[in-house]
Amino acid sequence: MGGTAVTKSQVTLRNKDILALQDMSVDEMQLILDTAKQMKQIIDRDIKKVPTLRGKSVINLFFESSTRTRTSFELAGKYLGADVVNITVSASSVTKGESLRDTLLTVEAMGVDAIIMRHEAEGSSQFASSIVKPVIINAGDGAHEHPTQGLLDMFTILQYKGQIQGLKVAIVGDILHSRVARSNIWGLKKMGAEVHVAGPQTLLPREMECMGIRVHNRIEDAIDQADVVNVLRIQKERQQKGLFPSLREYARIFGVNAKRLALAKEDALLMHPGPMNRGLEIAPDVAYSGQSAIQEQVKNGLAVRMAILFLVLMGGKNIETIG
Amino acid sequence: MGGTAVTKSQVTLRNKDILALQDMSVDEMQLILDTAKQMKQIIDRDIKKVPTLRGKSVINLFFESSTRTRTSFELAGKYLGADVVNITVSASSVTKGESLRDTLLTVEAMGVDAIIMRHEAEGSSQFASSIVKPVIINAGDGAHEHPTQGLLDMFTILQYKGQIQGLKVAIVGDILHSRVARSNIWGLKKMGAEVHVAGPQTLLPREMECMGIRVHNRIEDAIDQADVVNVLRIQKERQQKGLFPSLREYARIFGVNAKRLALAKEDALLMHPGPMNRGLEIAPDVAYSGQSAIQEQVKNGLAVRMAILFLVLMGGKNIETIG
Amino acid sequence: MGGTAVTKSQVTLRNKDILALQDMSVDEMQLILDTAKQMKQIIDRDIKKVPTLRGKSVINLFFESSTRTRTSFELAGKYLGADVVNITVSASSVTKGESLRDTLLTVEAMGVDAIIMRHEAEGSSQFASSIVKPVIINAGDGAHEHPTQGLLDMFTILQYKGQIQGLKVAIVGDILHSRVARSNIWGLKKMGAEVHVAGPQTLLPREMECMGIRVHNRIEDAIDQADVVNVLRIQKERQQKGLFPSLREYARIFGVNAKRLALAKEDALLMHPGPMNRGLEIAPDVAYSGQSAIQEQVKNGLAVRMAILFLVLMGGKNIETIG
Repeated sequence: MGGTAVTKSQVTLRNKDILALQDMSVDEMQLILDTAKQMKQIIDRDIKKVPTLRGKSVINLFFESSTRTRTSFELAGKYLGADVVNITVSASSVTKGESLRDTLLTVEAMGVDAIIMRHEAEGSSQFASSIVKPVIINAGDGAHEHPTQGLLDMFTILQYKGQIQGLKVAIVGDILHSRVARSNIWGLKKMGAEVHVAGPQTLLPREMECMGIRVHNRIEDAIDQADVVNVLRIQKERQQKGLFPSLREYARIFGVNAKRLALAKEDALLMHPGPMNRGLEIAPDVAYSGQSAIQEQVKNGLAVRMAILFLVLMGGKNIETIG
Repeated sequence: MGGTAVTKSQVTLRNKDILALQDMSVDEMQLILDTAKQMKQIIDRDIKKVPTLRGKSVINLFFESSTRTRTSFELAGKYLGADVVNITVSASSVTKGESLRDTLLTVEAMGVDAIIMRHEAEGSSQFASSIVKPVIINAGDGAHEHPTQGLLDMFTILQYKGQIQGLKVAIVGDILHSRVARSNIWGLKKMGAEVHVAGPQTLLPREMECMGIRVHNRIEDAIDQADVVNVLRIQKERQQKGLFPSLREYARIFGVNAKRLALAKEDALLMHPGPMNRGLEIAPDVAYSGQSAIQEQVKNGLAVRMAILFLVLMGGKNIETIG
Repeated sequence: MGGTAVTKSQVTLRNKDILALQDMSVDEMQLILDTAKQMKQIIDRDIKKVPTLRGKSVINLFFESSTRTRTSFELAGKYLGADVVNITVSASSVTKGESLRDTLLTVEAMGVDAIIMRHEAEGSSQFASSIVKPVIINAGDGAHEHPTQGLLDMFTILQYKGQIQGLKVAIVGDILHSRVARSNIWGLKKMGAEVHVAGPQTLLPREMECMGIRVHNRIEDAIDQADVVNVLRIQKERQQKGLFPSLREYARIFGVNAKRLALAKEDALLMHPGPMNRGLEIAPDVAYSGQSAIQEQVKNGLAVRMAILFLVLMGGKNIETIG
C-alpha cells in the first residue's frame, strides 16, 4: 500500500463536532476539502482499506430512514478500518418511548467515538452535542442543515470549476424545507459564490435575501448564465398534502430540462443530492448528460465523509501518512 | 497496546451456553464478573480493539426488536475482533413460516460459533441449546430470564458497593412479566443479598416468597432502608390492555421519585435496565441524580457481554493475555 | 493458519458477473464447484478468517427480504476478509421513487467491488450488469434464476453421489414460478443429469419439454427410481390468491412424505432450498431423516458463495494459496 501523504496541517477543526456549515470557518471547510481530495484516492484503489481508524467505533444513529447517507458513512468508516454499527430507530422503537437524551446517553456509555445522527428535529445535533462527549456528526437535522452534503457539493464544484469564488450557483426547488439548500447556501457564501435560489412562491423563504442571496420566482431567472445548477429533491409526501403546486404543474413550471439548462453557461454543471424523481424536478435528458455531476457527487460524498471521520477522530495529532 | 493480563482461572463455565442464572454457580458468576472487570478497561481505551476473537463468528438472532441489547452484543463482538452478523426476524419473515428449529439448524450450518438469541417464548434458549452445537447466549426469552442483564446489574452493584452479600436490594415494578427481575433475583440470592420486591397486586407472583425473597404491596416497604433500588420498565403495551393500573395511577402509586428514594439508605444506588419511561416508573429528578447508576449499567453491560463472549468462545484454553 | 492450496486453474470465468446458469459453461461451473470444495474447509476451521478479500467491498442489495441468502453472502464475504454492507430497499424506500438504474449508479459511485442483488423483476441482474462496472451477482431475479442456489444444489449432489452425469433428479412443486427450479434445470442438464419435474397442472410450464426435461402431472412418476428429490418451497401468498390448489389439497397430492420418498432409489437424496413449510410441501418425517441433505445445503451455499466472491473479485490473478 503506497502511502498517501497527508501533510500535517496548521489548521485544525475548532469544534469536536460537525453540526452546521453556518458555524464553520473557511479554513475549516478548506481543511476538510483538502483532506477529502486525498481520501478520494483510496476509493479508487484496488485495496480500499487503511488501518487509520482501527479500534475506533462509529454509530450511525438514524431516526429517519436513509439508504444513501447511511451507506456512505458506513463505507467511509469501514474503508478507514473503524467498527461501524447501525442503529435505525423506527416507529416501533419510538413506541418504546425512550427520550432522545436517554438514547444518546446509552450510546455514549457503550464507548463509541463518534455518533452520526439524522433526526427530524431542527437543532437535534446541537442538542446531542450538548449532552454527550463522543463526536457528533450531523447527517441531517430536519430542515436545518446537512453539512456533509454541503461540503460534498462544494468539493464537486471545485473539482469541475477549480474554484468557488465568483461563480453563480443556482439552487432550485423547495428551498424552504431543504437542509441541503441551507448548508449549500452557508458554505457557498463563505467561499465567495453568488447564490441564486428559485422555487414556487410558497417554498421560498423571502428573508433569505438578508443572507445576501438572490431569490427568484421564475426558475429561468436563477439559471440564467449560472455556472452551477443544483436541483433539489421534491418530497412528494408534502406535495400530496396539497401544500405545493401539483406534481404535474411542478414539473412544467420548475422542472429542470434541456431547454431550461440551456439558459445557463454552456459548460454549466448540473447537480442533484439524490435520490432523483426523474421526470419531476429533473428530466432524464439532462440527468445523464455530460453536464451532470450527479454520480460524481456520490463518490465525493464518500471522500468528504472519510475526511471528516479522519479529522474528528484523529484530531491534528498523528496525521502523517494514511495507508 | 499494553496487554491486560487475564489470569488463567481454575474455574471454567460448566455449560457451553449462557441460558439462565438459575443454573449458574456462584463460581461461574464470579468468573464472568472478574473477567468483565478487565474487559471494561478495553472500552475506555483509545484503541478499542483486541484480536482475541478474530475468526470467530457471532450471530445476533433477534425475534423481538431490541436496539440496546443487540447493539451491546454487536459492539462487544467487534471490540474483540469477531465477525458479527445481525438477523432480525420480523413479522414479515414470520409469514414465511419457518420453524424456530429450522432457523437454528440453518444458522448452525453456516458455521457460526455463537448464537445470541432473543425470543418471546420462555425456554426458547434452552430449546435452542438442545438443538444445535454453537454456543447459545440467552438475550431474553419471554418472561423467563435475561442472564446478561442480571450479571451486569450485579457487576454494577459490586462496583459501587464492593460486595453483594448482606445488601438489601429492592426490585420494583412489574415483577410478574419481567425476565430482568427473575435473573436479578436468582443471581442476587446466590450472591447473598436480601431481595425485596414490590409492585401492583396483579403483577406480584406471591409464590416468590418460596424463593426466599420478600414480597411487598407497598413500594415504600420494599425501598425502606434499601442499599439498591432497581426500577423495572413498565411495558405500556400491557397497560393499555387494561391488565394494570392506569399509567397515571401507576406513576402516582409506584413511580420512584426523590421522595420515595429518600426512604432508602442515604447512599442507595438507583438502577434501571432501560429504556426508561421517564415520569412513569421513574421520575427525571432521580434518573439523572448522583445516585443513579443507569448510564454505568449500559457500559457494564458491554463489559459483561465481552467477558461472556470471551469465556464461551475461548473456553479455559488460551486465556493468558488479551490485547 | 495452515494454508489451503488453491491450484491456479487454466479455466477462468468468462464474464465478470454471475447472472444465470443458462449462460455458464460446464468448465466454469466446475471451477466454482472445485473452489467451493476448498472454501468448505475454511468454514470448519476454528479460525474462520482469511485475508484474501481484505480491502474489497461487497454490497448486499436486496429489493426483496431474505434472511437466508443475505446472511450467507454476508458471512461468505466476512470469512474472506471483505467489507460487507447491507442495503435492504423496503417498501418505504420505494416510496422515495428512485429508479433501479439510479440506485445502481449510486452504489457504483461508492467504489464497491461487487453488488449482490435480489430483485423481483426477471432480468434485473442482466440490466444491472449492463449499467454498472462492479461485479453483479444474481441472488434471485423474479422467477428467472438463482444461480448460486443451483450451484450449491449441484455441489451437494456431487458430495453425496460423486457425480451428476446420468443421475435421475426429480424437482417437485411450483416449477412455473421457481427461479430455483430454473437454475437447477440449466445446471443439471449441462452436467448430464436426467431431470424430471412434477407439480400441479397450473404450475407446470409444458414448454420445458423442449429443454429436454420430462414433465409429469403425478409427483409419483417424477420420484420413481430418482437418485435425488429436490422439493421446492410453496409460496403460500400465491396459494391464498386462489391460483393454486388449496394448501390442504397440495399437501395431500404433492407433499413429499416417507411413503412417496420410498418410490425413489433406496439411497436417494432429499433436498429443499428452504425455508421449509413443514407439513405442506415436505413432511417432518423425511425432512430430518438420514436421507435429508437440507442442512448440508446451507453449509454448501456458504462455500459456493465464498468461491464465487473469491473468483469474481480475485480473477485468475493471484490465486495461489488462501489462508
